[in-house]
Amino acid sequence: MTLTIKRIFKSPPLDEEILVHGWVRTLRKGGSVYFMELNDGSCFENLQIVIDVNNFSISLNQVNLGVAVAVRGKLVKSPAPKQPIELQAHSIQILGEHNFEEYPIQKKATSLEFLREIAHLRPRTNTIGAAMRIRSTVSYIIHKFFQERDFYYIHTPIITASDCEGAGEMFRVTTLEPGDTNIQTDFFCRNAYLTVSGQLEAEALALALGRVYTFGPTFRAENSNTTRHLAEFWMIEPEIAFFNLSDNIDLAEELLKYCCSAVLELHEADLHWLEKFNEFNLLKNLADFIDKPVNRITYTEAVEILRKNKDQFEFEPVWGDDLKTEHEKFLVDNYFKGAVVVTNYPKKIKAFYMYQNDDETVACLDFLLPRVGETIGGSQREHRYDKLLSRMTELGMDLENYKWYLDLRRFGSVPHSGFGLGLERFLLFLTGLKNVRDVIPFPRYPGNVDF
Amino acid sequence: MTLTIKRIFKSPPLDEEILVHGWVRTLRKGGSVYFMELNDGSCFENLQIVIDVNNFSISLNQVNLGVAVAVRGKLVKSPAPKQPIELQAHSIQILGEHNFEEYPIQKKATSLEFLREIAHLRPRTNTIGAAMRIRSTVSYIIHKFFQERDFYYIHTPIITASDCEGAGEMFRVTTLEPGDTNIQTDFFCRNAYLTVSGQLEAEALALALGRVYTFGPTFRAENSNTTRHLAEFWMIEPEIAFFNLSDNIDLAEELLKYCCSAVLELHEADLHWLEKFNEFNLLKNLADFIDKPVNRITYTEAVEILRKNKDQFEFEPVWGDDLKTEHEKFLVDNYFKGAVVVTNYPKKIKAFYMYQNDDETVACLDFLLPRVGETIGGSQREHRYDKLLSRMTELGMDLENYKWYLDLRRFGSVPHSGFGLGLERFLLFLTGLKNVRDVIPFPRYPGNVDF
Repeated sequence: MTLTIKRIFKSPPLDEEILVHGWVRTLRKGGSVYFMELNDGSCFENLQIVIDVNNFSISLNQVNLGVAVAVRGKLVKSPAPKQPIELQAHSIQILGEHNFEEYPIQKKATSLEFLREIAHLRPRTNTIGAAMRIRSTVSYIIHKFFQERDFYYIHTPIITASDCEGAGEMFRVTTLEPGDTNIQTDFFCRNAYLTVSGQLEAEALALALGRVYTFGPTFRAENSNTTRHLAEFWMIEPEIAFFNLSDNIDLAEELLKYCCSAVLELHEADLHWLEKFNEFNLLKNLADFIDKPVNRITYTEAVEILRKNKDQFEFEPVWGDDLKTEHEKFLVDNYFKGAVVVTNYPKKIKAFYMYQNDDETVACLDFLLPRVGETIGGSQREHRYDKLLSRMTELGMDLENYKWYLDLRRFGSVPHSGFGLGLERFLLFLTGLKNVRDVIPFPRYPGNVDF
Repeated sequence: MTLTIKRIFKSPPLDEEILVHGWVRTLRKGGSVYFMELNDGSCFENLQIVIDVNNFSISLNQVNLGVAVAVRGKLVKSPAPKQPIELQAHSIQILGEHNFEEYPIQKKATSLEFLREIAHLRPRTNTIGAAMRIRSTVSYIIHKFFQERDFYYIHTPIITASDCEGAGEMFRVTTLEPGDTNIQTDFFCRNAYLTVSGQLEAEALALALGRVYTFGPTFRAENSNTTRHLAEFWMIEPEIAFFNLSDNIDLAEELLKYCCSAVLELHEADLHWLEKFNEFNLLKNLADFIDKPVNRITYTEAVEILRKNKDQFEFEPVWGDDLKTEHEKFLVDNYFKGAVVVTNYPKKIKAFYMYQNDDETVACLDFLLPRVGETIGGSQREHRYDKLLSRMTELGMDLENYKWYLDLRRFGSVPHSGFGLGLERFLLFLTGLKNVRDVIPFPRYPGNVDF
């Protein structure tokens, strides 16, 4: 394998003859030589190539922005202060076709909206490239975090017959021709859907392997065109036997901070670019989050705070109602000026599987991040058979469908907890970008399944 | 966090008071004390708990196989040769309900077929537990392998409008009620499917970030009830700019060997159990694979070998036909007695996107493993616009649908390569198990979408 530019910057093989591949970012003339900025996607930084056209014959006519080249040459310390090293080219080879005239990514800045229409080309830009590199790192770091703590990575099913939330619009999966309603001839001989969460199945594995986590795609067929919703998004769902709500919150806080630290350490150049692009203090934001303990309040306390400031809201905060976005925003951005975990919401507005406290609340958590809002939702699970059964009956759920889930409370039941982290929401926090469609390679939303 | 049993075995806090959680595997009386084997799923091994009933009052009536308990006690060196350490219990607490009478997992051995019917409980058994732990480790190690080599982890879309193979039965994704055929009111306003491969989209990212890989679910709606097929399975698909076929094969071989080494190092106890369970020399098998270079032959050479042995086959090997399972088996298990990579198949039996050699073949690879057969398929990609376009036209493909894919050959095109590794197939090789339904938590196949 030849060297990536990332590797060359990390430990430069100075004064050695090397071979580099990449795409041309700029080419300019300076005195008797040409300077080429080469990028291979492995990092934000370009490698500067110095081309002395007197030393070897090459036509630079075709060397335009975006063309792929292979460059052989000697790596040397750069005399210029802008970069530590540069490559003195001995040969340059064009590797493939490039229609520069029609290339939609030109030097002038383009809008993120336009780039969404060319999602197959946009990772070549600084902004989307940085977002994709950070996405990769944070995904890997999440695995590392859990593996270091004796968690097992599990793959819960994508096609499922059960609906985790008891609500939520689901996509149907079928092999029937449109119009055909004979379910007996459908692939699974019954209705099947795309999962909205792997939690229920993850619970089964937590009660066998102890500590587990999922990392996979989840789906919502909601007709929402917002900057925070996707029809297809990625979730990380740890589920831990013997954990109570407080253990669960500690884990969530530790995980998010661990990821922030890694991204700050490994993506300085990407973050500096994003900071400039987003025009706010992104790096300090992330550092602050790591340094400060996350505020923890109960839902009841949150409502008290909100009611004292109720003239600031469109919707009056009332105990028993769910918090609105404006309420969450106030708590995070105005009142606490930092991340907040809100616990113990009223039972009646939360899912059936949550542990029922002695009052009218359940042992749950919502993790709210600055700028982004809810990024994690979780709970201790109801592990007492009678309590769970009566709640499910109360809600009129189809018990036959959940027989296996109830079994987990009949056989070797234990207190256990878990949460779901929305990867794209978290990436908004990490990159400073404002729309989840810009932090996933090919976003899916109503009317859009291109590429 | 309290200690997992895995952690306790790794660095035992001897003579300290600790708290352990787990499920009871056995309880037996020995003289004046009871011995309990406790398992928390974190590793294959049980922790032995010594209970001197004279020292504290506990009723052991409810302590049956499968019940969850918390044990406090002092960790000491074990006098018995069977285990290095044991826990002298000071207190034992039962953590949840357990209906031992109806518990389907009893001490007597059960069949893998029966366990598939209780997929929500089967990870509690030694065999499935071992398979799930190995699945987690190999998944993580795959990430580690690529990240160490400057690859970026990317999430290609699950719901897609394009069909990577140009064939292959696909699941349709819809929000229309059964019977409704008004596509204009469907979620995406057009037909959408579950992906059969992330390759095409991965190519777009490789041509921006250089080296990328996917790790996600893929789907085939084929009505096949075999031991090697699932409707929903997980694939790893690296895609690498500037790589030719030979680089690609090197990478595939290095990846598989890296994973085998890690599993041998980290899962000795799980592997020993699986070796005993499967009744063949699993560990030596894996070690052999690591030690020997993988055989590499062209399809044409393979056909020559097979034709010299054609009396051994039901189907006569003929140049131009695809290799049958019996042919692959012969090459791997009889002729080479080890893994084989077969390259350069006839163009007419392979996918449209493969790099066209100067003869009638394409620059592709099939990686065949002992016992399992094809585990990896890959190729150098056709990066020349004209060649690709004429092949697609020849095959009558809908060019409008693949406009974006063709763009990748118009803008900054480069030679690039990639492959797809089927996780479940590879797990058959690693665990010695014979059916892919036993190496994924909740298998999906025709008629089965339970849990």
